[in-house]
Amino acid sequence: MIRPLGERVLVEAIEKEETTAFGIVLPDSAKDKPQEGKVVAVGIGALKDGVRVPLEVKEGDRIIFSKYAGTEVKFEGKEYLIMKESDIHAIIG
Amino acid sequence: MIRPLGERVLVEAIEKEETTAFGIVLPDSAKDKPQEGKVVAVGIGALKDGVRVPLEVKEGDRIIFSKYAGTEVKFEGKEYLIMKESDIHAIIG
Amino acid sequence: MIRPLGERVLVEAIEKEETTAFGIVLPDSAKDKPQEGKVVAVGIGALKDGVRVPLEVKEGDRIIFSKYAGTEVKFEGKEYLIMKESDIHAIIG
Amino acid sequence: MIRPLGERVLVEAIEKEETTAFGIVLPDSAKDKPQEGKVVAVGIGALKDGVRVPLEVKEGDRIIFSKYAGTEVKFEGKEYLIMKESDIHAIIG
Amino acid sequence: MIRPLGERVLVEAIEKEETTAFGIVLPDSAKDKPQEGKVVAVGIGALKDGVRVPLEVKEGDRIIFSKYAGTEVKFEGKEYLIMKESDIHAIIG
Amino acid sequence: MIRPLGERVLVEAIEKEETTAFGIVLPDSAKDKPQEGKVVAVGIGALKDGVRVPLEVKEGDRIIFSKYAGTEVKFEGKEYLIMKESDIHAIIG
Amino acid sequence: MIRPLGERVLVEAIEKEETTAFGIVLPDSAKDKPQEGKVVAVGIGALKDGVRVPLEVKEGDRIIFSKYAGTEVKFEGKEYLIMKESDIHAIIG
Repeated sequence: MIRPLGERVLVEAIEKEETTAFGIVLPDSAKDKPQEGKVVAVGIGALKDGVRVPLEVKEGDRIIFSKYAGTEVKFEGKEYLIMKESDIHAIIG
Repeated sequence: MIRPLGERVLVEAIEKEETTAFGIVLPDSAKDKPQEGKVVAVGIGALKDGVRVPLEVKEGDRIIFSKYAGTEVKFEGKEYLIMKESDIHAIIG
Repeated sequence: MIRPLGERVLVEAIEKEETTAFGIVLPDSAKDKPQEGKVVAVGIGALKDGVRVPLEVKEGDRIIFSKYAGTEVKFEGKEYLIMKESDIHAIIG
Repeated sequence: MIRPLGERVLVEAIEKEETTAFGIVLPDSAKDKPQEGKVVAVGIGALKDGVRVPLEVKEGDRIIFSKYAGTEVKFEGKEYLIMKESDIHAIIG
Repeated sequence: MIRPLGERVLVEAIEKEETTAFGIVLPDSAKDKPQEGKVVAVGIGALKDGVRVPLEVKEGDRIIFSKYAGTEVKFEGKEYLIMKESDIHAIIG
Repeated sequence: MIRPLGERVLVEAIEKEETTAFGIVLPDSAKDKPQEGKVVAVGIGALKDGVRVPLEVKEGDRIIFSKYAGTEVKFEGKEYLIMKESDIHAIIG
Repeated sequence: MIRPLGERVLVEAIEKEETTAFGIVLPDSAKDKPQEGKVVAVGIGALKDGVRVPLEVKEGDRIIFSKYAGTEVKFEGKEYLIMKESDIHAIIG
């Protein structure tokens, strides 16, 4: 198991072919390209003014995140991304 | 449904031809170009000093935002922008 | 009506020919050039430490602001600037 | 009258010829060049942690400020500078 | 013994050959490359708002950290890295 | 008299020939070069979280400061430096 | 005596030949090179939220610090470094 630290989130990216079913399309522009994924694990939250603030996303959430976000890791044969919650734009569904 | 995280807002841009009816025109200058849009969904607000501060804009608001703001997403055939509320200049109406 | 968000202010710039009557002249130097204007509408104020701090300027104030400040918008045939109060140097009168 | 906003100060610069009488001389070095002036009006102070902190300088103070500080304005035939108090180094006298 | 200061952590890097057993693989991309290691000692925590916040990782934790993080030291014949906890992405296991 | 504002300090630099008596020597390296001086006047302190924090140095202190720190002023025939206390490394004596 | 200000520490660097006895070796890499030293004097601590936070290191501590940290001073024939505690990675022993 991979337990992300603090405000970090473990994400499994969803391939483009699958995401078209969900309707996320990457338009041709200079703007940041979003990508779709699924939350696999979440950290205990960022520390703000002495208290841990729980993350907004939770395990199982379908999310839209910045294409350039995160660090890639492979664990037990599967590829994941570890990113900060601030790199996640929205929850789908 | 797309639920923006934190201080983020889901916006439907309004085409120029429509906005001229509303009177927003993009003058020729080096300044940031504003664009008109409609708020489709809002996040739960930014976290400031341990409390969530609700956003000023709400669903249905007609807004002026920075032309270069946000991330483009397509959902159920429609294009949207996800931006931070700080990229929104004003509410019209 | 255009309602500026947060610490933003809606300003109507005053043309140079008019401002000479008020005595604001732009001297020839490398310093930031100030411009004169009138406050048309103000936001609800910036959020500092969890409370909204009302703006110092109010509707009708004659102001001096930084020449490069703000975003230009046209509304019902008139041109305005939306800027942050921090771009305003002083009130005249 | 020009009322500077927040932590801003309205300053009347004092010409070099006059300042030699006061003893401020600009030595030849790569360091920031100070200039002498007189405080004409002060803002209500900067907002820190929800309270307005009154400025240290007051109307009439003879000051030393950074040569590159401020915005030049002309009002009723006289030239002034509007600068932040943080651009003022010291009070003379 | 090496006692890291504040929010710092003493880490023993684990060689690639060993880490494949654990499943961490470095995919070929422009993203930050993660590396696997073991926590050897931890500091007393960062100082936030006047209190020491204990670190999330503890001695013995198997971690994933940023490949470019930390300072290399050799102590009693063994090589270690001293890094800030913010350079650690996740705990494995 | 020159009264430095806030966290500023008025310093009289001590010439190299004199400082060798005190033992401060500038070694040949790429590091910041320290210089020796004497505190002539101090400001009322920096404003932190709404209170003025008195400076650590006081009038008469012999100090080591960063060679590139401060603004040069001449007052009643003598040259001084106005610098922030954060540019002072240590007190000698 | 040299009394470092605030969060500063007076350090006596230990030559490489001596440090090999202690086991600190500088590996050949692009990472920051650590150096070994001994704490000679410490400041009263950094000011955080209105209170002085005592330093973690104390006189006599054997430390590892960043090779590029600090300002060199010579006092009574001996060379020292004045650095901020944040430039110190760890305590040995």
